Amino acid sequence: MSNKLEELRQQLDEINGKLLELMNQRAAVVQQIGEVKKQQGVNKYDPVREQDMLNRLVQANTGPFDDGTIRHLFKQIFKASLDLQQQDQKKVLLV
Amino acid sequence: MSNKLEELRQQLDEINGKLLELMNQRAAVVQQIGEVKKQQGVNKYDPVREQDMLNRLVQANTGPFDDGTIRHLFKQIFKASLDLQQQDQKKVLLV
Repeated sequence: MSNKLEELRQQLDEINGKLLELMNQRAAVVQQIGEVKKQQGVNKYDPVREQDMLNRLVQANTGPFDDGTIRHLFKQIFKASLDLQQQDQKKVLLV
Repeated sequence: MSNKLEELRQQLDEINGKLLELMNQRAAVVQQIGEVKKQQGVNKYDPVREQDMLNRLVQANTGPFDDGTIRHLFKQIFKASLDLQQQDQKKVLLV
């Protein structure tokens, strides 16, 4: 394999690692938000806030991913985070 | 809204921004890899390398996202990056 390819792959691995860390950081913050909302008796899923986050992400998007791709990827992340919040909630109900 | 919730949401927005930046950085690196592979006449899609990246991500995963979620989210990112490479390829073919 060429050195250039090897170098680019190392960059990719580094970025993957940072993405993993940030996704889990994000998940942990969403769990904390779920906790605060539970204490306040507020509904956890907030589509307006989600839409607002997506709009700001698209506004900040400089590519190469197009806006549709960014929306798609973040919706997946949002959904996974919400699923995690709901699992936490179920655990509480089962105790 | 409580200060605590507001603070957590600000953290979320910061993390979203960093994720956006990293995803696009990743996409740009994948585009460069596509370019190098094109010059070398190598096939772009490399399922072994993809599996290898997924395995390492799962090994490095400390949660709160479970391994299945990490696999799912990264597969989406890999797919979007590959789609982008293929769009680049089509553009070249159309010129």
